[in-house]
Amino acid sequence: MSSNNDKITNKHTVWHDPTVFRADREALNKHKSAIVWFTGLSAAGKSTLAHALEDKLHKRSIHTFVLDGDNIRQGLCKDLGFSDADREENIRRIGEVSKLLLDAGVFVMTAFISPFKKDRKIARDLVTHGDFIEIYCKASLETCEKRDPKGLYKKARAGEIPEFTGISSPYEEPESPELVIETDKKDVEQCVAQVINYLEEKKII
Amino acid sequence: MSSNNDKITNKHTVWHDPTVFRADREALNKHKSAIVWFTGLSAAGKSTLAHALEDKLHKRSIHTFVLDGDNIRQGLCKDLGFSDADREENIRRIGEVSKLLLDAGVFVMTAFISPFKKDRKIARDLVTHGDFIEIYCKASLETCEKRDPKGLYKKARAGEIPEFTGISSPYEEPESPELVIETDKKDVEQCVAQVINYLEEKKII
Repeated sequence: MSSNNDKITNKHTVWHDPTVFRADREALNKHKSAIVWFTGLSAAGKSTLAHALEDKLHKRSIHTFVLDGDNIRQGLCKDLGFSDADREENIRRIGEVSKLLLDAGVFVMTAFISPFKKDRKIARDLVTHGDFIEIYCKASLETCEKRDPKGLYKKARAGEIPEFTGISSPYEEPESPELVIETDKKDVEQCVAQVINYLEEKKII
Repeated sequence: MSSNNDKITNKHTVWHDPTVFRADREALNKHKSAIVWFTGLSAAGKSTLAHALEDKLHKRSIHTFVLDGDNIRQGLCKDLGFSDADREENIRRIGEVSKLLLDAGVFVMTAFISPFKKDRKIARDLVTHGDFIEIYCKASLETCEKRDPKGLYKKARAGEIPEFTGISSPYEEPESPELVIETDKKDVEQCVAQVINYLEEKKII
């Protein structure tokens, strides 16, 4: 492998630097890439909102991708559990993959509880200011527990799931996220509209 | 987080399944996505070839991305060393990230020694037959050692790098790669042309 700085010529080979960069991919895509990082309690609506947002953006010819439990926990992070250390490594890897997708020109959305401030900060600090849009899906624990689409809160209350966020493990609310969406007070359409308004205002889309 | 199968409605929330899939992204991109997996000795020209290929493909409006040591070893895999176990985990993660990029509609190229058959098989088996194009960058150890753009062979010979592929750790040649490119007998332009011919023949691009 040649690094970016290698420029070596011999009889048969010229070493090439990369010639295609994020800006070139954005130009091809005709839009900027970005990371929209949804955080919040289980059942706060992160994945729902990410997929509903993706639907709208795709219809506007934006090149989108959603990282969520469905494509991360069974794949890249299948070796990780739910201890604090594993949660940290999980979020670190998601941050790194988001960065790669960002560089690939993709408008990436992530939908993970990501309960710890320091882990979200690690993901944020991987990229340039403005590329990371943290959106807090704010819903009361009561609401989330009432929804409980997978029965996880029930299991957690029964002590069957250790270190469950909101029950036996803390959720650290973002102090200054780019956006707060009260997902227990608005329907999905309204939530999506709020995100799109923000992205348009900031000229991200 | 809601899984693909959750469809729950309450007063304020409708749970959405994903509505944008790989085929939709490929339709937007106007090309298929694929994984081109370059394997071969250090200095066999994998990264060079990947970047030269990317240059050509990008000019054809193909949405490309290269995974190589420069963006993986300092990021996603910075916790890994070069033991057999760490090499295996390194390749596993690269395979998983390639799969995510594939799903995101990206034409992804990887440039890693990936010396072990079983690890390359793990990466191959993550995706559907036809999505994984293994290209063996074949160059003699003698040639690679003579090139030695980073002085790694020299260090390995001096015993300063343990488990260096070709010197103190084996390189297992692919038995039935999609393509073999003799990178010590052709210049970069010829190598790229060989890859492009293959991709066109197979109607991948």
